[in-house]
Order: sequence, then structure tokens, then C-alpha cells
Amino acid sequence: MNEFEMIQRYFLPLTMGRKEAEQLQDDAAILDIPDGHDLVISSDTLNGGTHFLKDEDPANIAHKVLRVNLSDMVAMGAQPLCYQMNLAFSHLPDDAWVKDFSAALLEDNAEFDVFCSGGDTTVAEGPLLISLTITGIVPKGQAVKRSTAQAGDLVVLSGPIGRAAVGVKILLDVLDVDNPAPFLQAAHRPIPRVAISNEICKYARAAVDVSDGLIADLGHVCQTSGVGAQLELANIPFTDETKALVEGERISYEDLLTGGDDYEIAMAVAPENFDDFSAAAAAQGVELSVIGTFVAGQALEVIDEKGAPLSFKRAGWTHF
Amino acid sequence: MNEFEMIQRYFLPLTMGRKEAEQLQDDAAILDIPDGHDLVISSDTLNGGTHFLKDEDPANIAHKVLRVNLSDMVAMGAQPLCYQMNLAFSHLPDDAWVKDFSAALLEDNAEFDVFCSGGDTTVAEGPLLISLTITGIVPKGQAVKRSTAQAGDLVVLSGPIGRAAVGVKILLDVLDVDNPAPFLQAAHRPIPRVAISNEICKYARAAVDVSDGLIADLGHVCQTSGVGAQLELANIPFTDETKALVEGERISYEDLLTGGDDYEIAMAVAPENFDDFSAAAAAQGVELSVIGTFVAGQALEVIDEKGAPLSFKRAGWTHF
Repeated sequence: MNEFEMIQRYFLPLTMGRKEAEQLQDDAAILDIPDGHDLVISSDTLNGGTHFLKDEDPANIAHKVLRVNLSDMVAMGAQPLCYQMNLAFSHLPDDAWVKDFSAALLEDNAEFDVFCSGGDTTVAEGPLLISLTITGIVPKGQAVKRSTAQAGDLVVLSGPIGRAAVGVKILLDVLDVDNPAPFLQAAHRPIPRVAISNEICKYARAAVDVSDGLIADLGHVCQTSGVGAQLELANIPFTDETKALVEGERISYEDLLTGGDDYEIAMAVAPENFDDFSAAAAAQGVELSVIGTFVAGQALEVIDEKGAPLSFKRAGWTHF
Repeated sequence: MNEFEMIQRYFLPLTMGRKEAEQLQDDAAILDIPDGHDLVISSDTLNGGTHFLKDEDPANIAHKVLRVNLSDMVAMGAQPLCYQMNLAFSHLPDDAWVKDFSAALLEDNAEFDVFCSGGDTTVAEGPLLISLTITGIVPKGQAVKRSTAQAGDLVVLSGPIGRAAVGVKILLDVLDVDNPAPFLQAAHRPIPRVAISNEICKYARAAVDVSDGLIADLGHVCQTSGVGAQLELANIPFTDETKALVEGERISYEDLLTGGDDYEIAMAVAPENFDDFSAAAAAQGVELSVIGTFVAGQALEVIDEKGAPLSFKRAGWTHF
């Protein structure tokens, strides 16, 4: 298999199935954007050795790189459309590697209704490097931003957090648990909440995806919106497996709240909109949790079961 | 200067000056696409050591990576809008390097009326790697493709070719000339024909940019359109400096016609449209040349001054 065959056999099929991508023999792809929409565009690069282990399963790499990009679209309330993929290999990968890598992308193309609009492959010394640039659409003027939370809004989370942080610790060999599967799954194959992009656009006043940790990412919302937030630890959703690790003192709440890679969406929602939003999300299989309230000021606090604020040592937390 | 300071000081200014890019504190940029337009999207990656010398002037690298991407938009008849930039550094570059690199991009932003919509910087072993994904717009359904040339159309070129091929030979130390400046300029800072994007969209039936060499790129047009082409060597525009090198037997016509990196636009134009197109391009300072005709069949021939076809040895030429 040479580079040309690799592209023909494994990457070209990623562009199929959508009429917008018919034109891949040209210098660029032509995309039909419906009138009355804004375009939303974002990039994320993953590097071997930094963002994934050098001998990582290619399917895991593929799912991760596409899903973290999809999550950025969801956080804007945008419907993802397509992605450009730029791959830099140190050497031509073997057939099995590319086969598994592209099969995982094809799976996600179908699951999340997106396609590859183009990209390139180059050869460069160093670890595998994958840049995705993702494009989505949102009704004009209705993209959801970080900077628009208001004091009095509810802090709403799209699902349980902390599993990916546990998964990363397992991968780094600093934690050993009896049943690692759900944690590794969360770290390798986060679930971007594409299912509720439209509902986020309709009901959320501000949103961010939890990539750097709940505290850091909600901190960005607070900082850019000029508000603070008070979270109730008891209302933050953790899975039973995650809670068991805290109870067994294998991991701390601080680790879970400051660990990244969950890709749940943290939002500001006006109280009067929550019931409709919650019902609409539930209809798409997503259970929303109210975990606190945005407040005047600039402090971001997490209150424990006894009513005392948790204290955090980690960086990213220092400017509050 | 740490990574954060580098981004704040040198990369954030690249996103300024267009209202669409105000939102860079979010997970993605929001772009206002006018109704009635298609989106055109394309990527090109440049690697240190492959696409530019490892110790290359950062301004040259910046101009090159942006301009080759701009050229892809022009070849589609699209108006470039903005670009995502993904940079992978092996180590944090020094202040002077980033200053020169970003200043060159700022210059081109102004010259070609584009802006940076986002991107990311990562650290990875290996040479500097820059992926740009460029986005443009074109009136709906009017993007210019490669596959739509017709027998009887004129083969039209947007400017002289071959200078970049000479420049690359000088850079690789396989050719030494008395006055290298115009050749190096062509290799480092090709001029993307953004000035006539709208005219290409209006008048050209098919188009391609000359990145891999006139013969190879016109070959793509012929192959995808199911036509051949007959070019007249006497009508292909070369600068006087380039012609002097051929006359001095320092370089051959084959080298000039198969060398890449010129980024002129080769087009199929219906004969009845040429005069209007030529006048409109001239009004933008671009001189068009008719260098031949698309013909029935699949042969791509270049006829010399004596009426004999030139023969080519190089690969890329074999399938004709």
C-alpha cells in the first residue's frame, strides 16, 4: 500500500454519502450551507505521546480526535457538518492500522451524521499528529457563547463527570481499579452530546464543553460572563463506580472536578427554561442535572454535603 | 515568552479586524456566511525539511503556507474568507521567530482580505508542521471545478510560469544563476490570484492552480473532464529572465513545464467569453494568456515553434 492507495482505499470512503462531498477531485470541497445560518468552525490537534499513547489502538485515536472536535460544535449549539483531516505520519502506517483507524471514523460519521470534507496526509519525522478542523452550522445569530451567563441562571450539566479523569490515571499507571472498562471507555471514546445540539441552541444561555475539567471550564464561563457560581457537590452527577472510588479513598473529589476529558456540556440556563430543556433532552436520551447557580461576584465555589466550601490546590483554579 | 503569551501577543492579532472573529473566547469561531453562497473549504500542510528548509526565514514560511491555501480558493472561483491555523512546534520558538512569522501573516491578511479564525498550537517532536484549513465563499452552485472543461475551450493561464521551478533548483543548490532574486521570490512568495477570483467564477468553465506543474495540473483537468489539450509553446508566458536561462541551456522547457509551485491559475474558457474575461482581469492588474485549446481525445500535447510535439520524460506525464 502506497500513500495514494491508502487515500483511495481508506480515506476517500470517509467523504462519501453526502452530496456536498462529491467534488473531492477539485482543489477544495464545496459545501451547501442553508440560508439563514452562521458557520461555526474549530480545530483540535492530537499528538502521539502527548494526547494518546504511541502504541494506542488506532480506533481509539480516531474516535477521540473526531469526538473532541464534535464536542466543540455541541458547546456552541451548532449542528456539526463535516471535518477536514490533516495527518502527519513519520512513516506510512501498515494496512491494518489505517483500516481500523478509518473504520472507526466511518462508524462515527454514521452515528453523528458528519463526513470528511478533505484534508491531507504528509510525512514528517516525529510522532503521529492529527489535526481536525470541524465545521458546523447554527441558525444565524443563535450560536451559544461562553460569555453570556447571567447571575440567577442554573448551572446545568449534560451527564456524569470524572470517569475520564479516572481513565487517564489508569492509562498513566498511577491508579489500578478492579473494573477499568467504563473508565477507559470514557477516556478513549467520550460521547459528544450531538444529540442535544439543537436543544442547547434553543435553551442554553451560555455553554462550554468539559475538556480541561469542570472547574476550569466553568471558570471560563464565569470569567468571560463576569459572574460567579456556587455548585452543590451533592448534585454533581457521578456514576456509582466513580463514587465507590471516592468512598474507597482511591481518588478525591478534587481529582474528579479538575480532571478533564469528559466532554459533557456545562451550561447556564434560565430557571424558567429548565423544565422544557430537560424534557427535550430526555427525549433524546440525555439526562440533565442542575448542579448549582450562577451568582453575582466572581467566586466559583463547590459546597460539600456539610455546607462547607471544598478547597482546591490545583492550578487553573488560582485566579478565583 | 510562554505558549500563552505567544498566542496572546502574536496569534490573537491575526484574528482581529473582522467582526466575525470577535468570539475567539469560545469553543469555536462564528462566521457570518451571506445567504445564497456555498462554502468552499480546503487544507494544505507544510512540513519543515520537506516543504521548506529547516532554517528558512519565518516570513517566507508564513507567506508560503497562507498563499498556497489562498490559491486553492482562487482555483475554485471562491472569495477566501478566513483560515484555521494548526502549528506543531518541537520547542517553543524564540520571540523574534514568532514576531516575523506573525507579521508576515498580518501583511497577507490585509493584502488578501482574510483573517485567522482560530487554530491551535501543540508541542511535538520533529520539524515544524503547519496545517492551514482555508474557508471561502462562492455564489451558490457557481464554484469552478476541474471536471467541466469542454473540447473547443481555450486554455488560459493567469501569468508566467517556471520561475518557482528555477527558484526551487537554486534553493536545492542544483542551479546557480547571476540574479536569483526574482526566482527565489517566486518560490517563497507566490502571488495567489485572489484579485481575479470573482472573474474566474464568472468566466472560467474549469480551473486548477499550478502547484504540481503546468503539465500535471492541466492533466488533472483533462482527465476529469474527459478531454485532451494542445498547447503552443510559443504562447506559454515565461519572464525574460526565465527565457534567458533556457537559451543559455541552464534549464529546459521540460523543467519549466513540469516544475511546480507557481500558483498561477490554468483555466478552460469558452472562446466567446475570453475578451470580456481578459479585460476584467486586466482591470485587476492580471494579464491572461491563451496558451492552447482543449480538444477531443485524451492527449495533452505541447507543440514547439517548429510544429513538433515536445516529449516529456517525467512521471506524472505517463498516463497520457
